[in-house]
Amino acid sequence: MARWEPHTKERLARAALELYSEHGYERTTVAQIAARAGLTERTYFRHFPDKREVLFDGGHSLETTLTEAVAAAPEDASPRAALAAGLDALGAGFRGLRARARTRQAVISAQQELQERELIKLASLTRALAEALRQRGVEETRANLLAEAGCGVFRTAFVRWVGDERPETGASAEEIPLAALLREGLDTLGDALTHD
Amino acid sequence: MARWEPHTKERLARAALELYSEHGYERTTVAQIAARAGLTERTYFRHFPDKREVLFDGGHSLETTLTEAVAAAPEDASPRAALAAGLDALGAGFRGLRARARTRQAVISAQQELQERELIKLASLTRALAEALRQRGVEETRANLLAEAGCGVFRTAFVRWVGDERPETGASAEEIPLAALLREGLDTLGDALTHD
Repeated sequence: MARWEPHTKERLARAALELYSEHGYERTTVAQIAARAGLTERTYFRHFPDKREVLFDGGHSLETTLTEAVAAAPEDASPRAALAAGLDALGAGFRGLRARARTRQAVISAQQELQERELIKLASLTRALAEALRQRGVEETRANLLAEAGCGVFRTAFVRWVGDERPETGASAEEIPLAALLREGLDTLGDALTHD
Repeated sequence: MARWEPHTKERLARAALELYSEHGYERTTVAQIAARAGLTERTYFRHFPDKREVLFDGGHSLETTLTEAVAAAPEDASPRAALAAGLDALGAGFRGLRARARTRQAVISAQQELQERELIKLASLTRALAEALRQRGVEETRANLLAEAGCGVFRTAFVRWVGDERPETGASAEEIPLAALLREGLDTLGDALTHD
């Protein structure tokens, strides 16, 4: 068992998502999640405080991916280019995860409490992005505006990416690049905001 | 008493904001709010389901102001111009209300539950704005992007407007136009998104 320990969190997260998707969030218990993962409830609670947080564990690494990429952009990169680098990194981080993102989205959409939690995580992502831009010397209002727009682009692209109009499974679905939708979104928004 | 009836909601909202600001949200009861407004608890609950909603009653009229102005923009107005018309209307709707907005903001900032409720209201505003743009024939992704950006501009301008750096009271503070900050935000964002 010990050699599996590093994957414990991941196993619990997968088991939770499966059960929420199969039986609904409300009807699933922590005991069932732990059992599905072949672990104990005690182990579950060592990793997650409740049955909600297991769905949002990726939030922190999302934030780190985004802000580190913004910080790592060349010193002379424009604020827009730094933002684009951040979105590219986010897109790359979701590569191969569309089916899972899609399942998670369906679970969250079915439950108001989870939608609210998602909004809070996105607001936190926006604040972190604004701070990363300010750290590059971007003036505060401009940094806030770009962060709001950048997270809006992310949300819009993400909804398209997991959207219904594409095949649900199979290699081709997995290869639809979120990164391309993010880039396209950034261009479209810039275009829409400057054409009167 | 009867002739005051149309102002009942407004009196309750003012009394609640005063008490939340003076004693804190947690420590204020509906009974105290009703007493401050010179009304009964029963009357309070005819207008609001709980002590939280009294702070968010303006949300619906905000949404109506925004979407009606977007719909009323000239038929040949660009999506950006329609969005700008909506933001202008929002700005005009807040004229003379800075001191109150500032107090409300302070109450909300002190309480996580209220911040979460504010995020939910803003997400609803974003959806309504996207729908108003789609009704004008704006393509879905473009409408979603502009709605996200427009609400981001609103949030950023609003925070600046109620911000600490300006005088708290007096005629001059009341005359700082939110509408001007909204216009400036829209221009700044368009500029930042198109300069590489």
